Amino acid sequence: MSPVPLYVLTLACPNRPGIVAAISQTLFAQGGNITEAQQFDDALTQRFFMRIVFTLLSADATPASLQTAITPVARAFAMEWRLTDISRPPRTLLLVSKFDHCLVDLLYRWRIGELAIDPVGIVANHPAETYAHIDFGSIPFRHLPVTKETKPQQEAHILDLAATTGAELVVLARYMQVLSSNMAAALSGRCINIHHSFLPGFKGARPYHQAFAHGVKLIGATAHYVTDDLDEGPIIEQDVERISHADTPDDLIRKGRDIERRVLARAVRYHIERRTILNGNKTIVFLP
Amino acid sequence: MSPVPLYVLTLACPNRPGIVAAISQTLFAQGGNITEAQQFDDALTQRFFMRIVFTLLSADATPASLQTAITPVARAFAMEWRLTDISRPPRTLLLVSKFDHCLVDLLYRWRIGELAIDPVGIVANHPAETYAHIDFGSIPFRHLPVTKETKPQQEAHILDLAATTGAELVVLARYMQVLSSNMAAALSGRCINIHHSFLPGFKGARPYHQAFAHGVKLIGATAHYVTDDLDEGPIIEQDVERISHADTPDDLIRKGRDIERRVLARAVRYHIERRTILNGNKTIVFLP
Amino acid sequence: MSPVPLYVLTLACPNRPGIVAAISQTLFAQGGNITEAQQFDDALTQRFFMRIVFTLLSADATPASLQTAITPVARAFAMEWRLTDISRPPRTLLLVSKFDHCLVDLLYRWRIGELAIDPVGIVANHPAETYAHIDFGSIPFRHLPVTKETKPQQEAHILDLAATTGAELVVLARYMQVLSSNMAAALSGRCINIHHSFLPGFKGARPYHQAFAHGVKLIGATAHYVTDDLDEGPIIEQDVERISHADTPDDLIRKGRDIERRVLARAVRYHIERRTILNGNKTIVFLP
Amino acid sequence: MSPVPLYVLTLACPNRPGIVAAISQTLFAQGGNITEAQQFDDALTQRFFMRIVFTLLSADATPASLQTAITPVARAFAMEWRLTDISRPPRTLLLVSKFDHCLVDLLYRWRIGELAIDPVGIVANHPAETYAHIDFGSIPFRHLPVTKETKPQQEAHILDLAATTGAELVVLARYMQVLSSNMAAALSGRCINIHHSFLPGFKGARPYHQAFAHGVKLIGATAHYVTDDLDEGPIIEQDVERISHADTPDDLIRKGRDIERRVLARAVRYHIERRTILNGNKTIVFLP
Repeated sequence: MSPVPLYVLTLACPNRPGIVAAISQTLFAQGGNITEAQQFDDALTQRFFMRIVFTLLSADATPASLQTAITPVARAFAMEWRLTDISRPPRTLLLVSKFDHCLVDLLYRWRIGELAIDPVGIVANHPAETYAHIDFGSIPFRHLPVTKETKPQQEAHILDLAATTGAELVVLARYMQVLSSNMAAALSGRCINIHHSFLPGFKGARPYHQAFAHGVKLIGATAHYVTDDLDEGPIIEQDVERISHADTPDDLIRKGRDIERRVLARAVRYHIERRTILNGNKTIVFLP
Repeated sequence: MSPVPLYVLTLACPNRPGIVAAISQTLFAQGGNITEAQQFDDALTQRFFMRIVFTLLSADATPASLQTAITPVARAFAMEWRLTDISRPPRTLLLVSKFDHCLVDLLYRWRIGELAIDPVGIVANHPAETYAHIDFGSIPFRHLPVTKETKPQQEAHILDLAATTGAELVVLARYMQVLSSNMAAALSGRCINIHHSFLPGFKGARPYHQAFAHGVKLIGATAHYVTDDLDEGPIIEQDVERISHADTPDDLIRKGRDIERRVLARAVRYHIERRTILNGNKTIVFLP
Repeated sequence: MSPVPLYVLTLACPNRPGIVAAISQTLFAQGGNITEAQQFDDALTQRFFMRIVFTLLSADATPASLQTAITPVARAFAMEWRLTDISRPPRTLLLVSKFDHCLVDLLYRWRIGELAIDPVGIVANHPAETYAHIDFGSIPFRHLPVTKETKPQQEAHILDLAATTGAELVVLARYMQVLSSNMAAALSGRCINIHHSFLPGFKGARPYHQAFAHGVKLIGATAHYVTDDLDEGPIIEQDVERISHADTPDDLIRKGRDIERRVLARAVRYHIERRTILNGNKTIVFLP
Repeated sequence: MSPVPLYVLTLACPNRPGIVAAISQTLFAQGGNITEAQQFDDALTQRFFMRIVFTLLSADATPASLQTAITPVARAFAMEWRLTDISRPPRTLLLVSKFDHCLVDLLYRWRIGELAIDPVGIVANHPAETYAHIDFGSIPFRHLPVTKETKPQQEAHILDLAATTGAELVVLARYMQVLSSNMAAALSGRCINIHHSFLPGFKGARPYHQAFAHGVKLIGATAHYVTDDLDEGPIIEQDVERISHADTPDDLIRKGRDIERRVLARAVRYHIERRTILNGNKTIVFLP
């Protein structure tokens, strides 16, 4: 039995009066019962952003009839919009390198029903033995090693896999490879990375060693949408933890694992609940 | 010159479809431009809560015409509602005892324009000399000492002051007197207290000493609406700070002052921006 | 090859001058090189507590010779003391009920070398199938169901297991059974529990539901040594996370899992690094 | 009546066995009763750092006799060391520009006895009227305006003031002028600045606007010792607060004031309690 559909309408358009009235009227006419609604007026760009969660009370209404009803309103207000049934977990491809703490964490949250993803594949640039202690269940695992020379082919392989599995979300769960511009563009808006620093501090390699050398008193992690600008994609979530002068780089790496796990898990949750809307180089996150 | 009015409509009613559509349609028809809107469906009680911020684009619309327009909709949905122009700072009475850190903090935030209150009086159960270093400017100061015997008269005095000054908000800024049930009732919904513990832990007297004796690793403070149930009123805001075994009760009191200041200031801000709606013994806080 | 021994001397005694000098002199004479030292004077009880980490530079010194050297000094100052080689992971028994997030977390930290325990057994009051997705490796698993009637026998079974495995530490990783006074006493000082509330708030059953009903704005978890006073044992570590009016009890349970995991993992780490010393109903924690 | 002296000995030297034994023996022989002691072995540089707090039980011992007793030990271990009686508040010069929240905060903490400084002067590059609401009491106020042209003279004036008042500590309490290399050098190790960003992110001007443009989810503040490398001096303390996409730069500035106040106050406290020791471009902070 399918779960009851739970729709999220996200939209962005130039700000002018009447948007909320028009949209809520339209959904009401379709038998929609709004259970959550959040909006944001960007004073800088004069753009308006909204997220509306609703169920359908009428058996007649369907996603198709909703699309038909929303389209003229959307056109009238020049909206970019997207309608998602979040009761259906999105097909998700997970990429990982040697360190598997984020992968293990996401899979655990998925298994106990906390994170509503549908894992359609795990891709690693390390062999299966590296992950011997993880129960992948029926999720297909692919070892796709990568060198400087084979990178184009390897990326093509991953994109192909994303296409054939119909992946709607790609999570770089400590996948320690810089994506090419092509690949970043191909996954635009549906690829989340976790960077192990409080960006914009300590971009690039070995951020915990950088933090150690700098003598900061807090370290952090950042989950962001992947763009072709390395470590500069729109930030979804960040968090930090206190460190002291006595913490070695290894202590920072250890404390960092805890931050990375929770920051990535939160970012994925926000994405699949469609709480995020891109706004230029920033991310609007309608928190619960 | 008056500031441009900024209206907040807060409402609560039994949940059923069409509320958002009806209200947003009504405000739109009055020339209202919605700049913020948040809602909450309480699944437990089947009640719906909403906060809508809007400006008026039409010069014809007035608070009175808004009231007229909203009234039939409100009646149709059985709403409790309140319309506030938050561009006008609420008249605020500040009560204080010996420790003045919260009072000093609130006055500073007011003076630099951070906290939009209109202080109409300061009432203390300690004499003016206690606060010799504070610049009260033109805010009337009243010393109203209190003993067990004079409590009814003293409270009557304060209520009288609240009435004559038209106080819309009363802040107990570390006012270390338990209000009588009568007084609590008289100020219901417009009186905020700061309690120096992470409630419901350590109610009553000397909470930092209780926390010390208990060996907790974090201490906190709680801002809540005052009801006749001591330290049990609906919580608006809480925060904590880490302590260690080496912290003495005096250290806790010192660290606590920092927590109390920011928790009370946030609670007052949430209240005057009408982000709070009472929901039984709880407070809905629509955070920015 | 064995790791290089790393000794921790913890001690408690009446405070008087000369303790640090006497102890550091003694360790120096034995070829000890102190790498960490922390102390605490409890002004309330006039007791002195110290933790000293040291390596042995001399091949002649042994744990036995250290004991011999320390004994007269300890006697002179009436010290309670303990010498531990923390390079050897303590034998640890893990108890779990239905919810396995803390167990999974501890095992992961152990497997990647983050948490230096030696898991000698896992005891559950649910059958093995409940944990089908967890790789227990060679750690013996025992299903010991418990009812009101069989509790004495079940506890005897666990204590027997603790004895035969030589368990030095017992972790209640969300083991949802109240230990009898007998069992609590038998494991005194070496049994850590995680309670899913910010104690002393919300003791007893269903703390997240209590927190929800109370309308608090932060929820927490508490790791403590087990005593026969339920949920009142000396607190080792606590942490909190922010919640909102929109969070359901299920949301609190979900957010709570993250808090419980990190609080329990930290508490176990502090214990096995001998950073904790009991001080009446409180725990001294010498943080790194 | 003078307070009872409370001595802090801080030292740094090449790490080798016997340091703790030698120092504690020496202090014990002088009638010293150690009440706190913390140490740090820097594995990277092989240097050893220690902070020892002690009182003198013998009436014969004096700072001079202590100096005499410590000197040969210090020489034997090639120590850099400093003996401070922290019962005497250090003479402190406070520098401020237009925004006075940190100044007001420090003065409040000083007035209620929370922060043991002896304010010997307030220097501002804005006129006295700017601070009309602050009660400076008997603390001399100097208005020393500064332009690009008069900077050398203005700085000379400040250094002169520091010399004549015997200032042991200079606090840049949101003093929005970059110190010259000369002045930074002259105040080396005794000048604390608060920067309104989580360094190393957002150095230089208008950090909250930078943070806003970048779309970070947390903002912070950093207190550091001043060196001639702008915003790169050894970090003493940092903290952060959560922000959202809806926060404007003005909201960030407002939230930032709270962070700046507590971070600067903590850093000054750590300094005057001699909890800080410089270690290259980093600061060791022995937290309580």
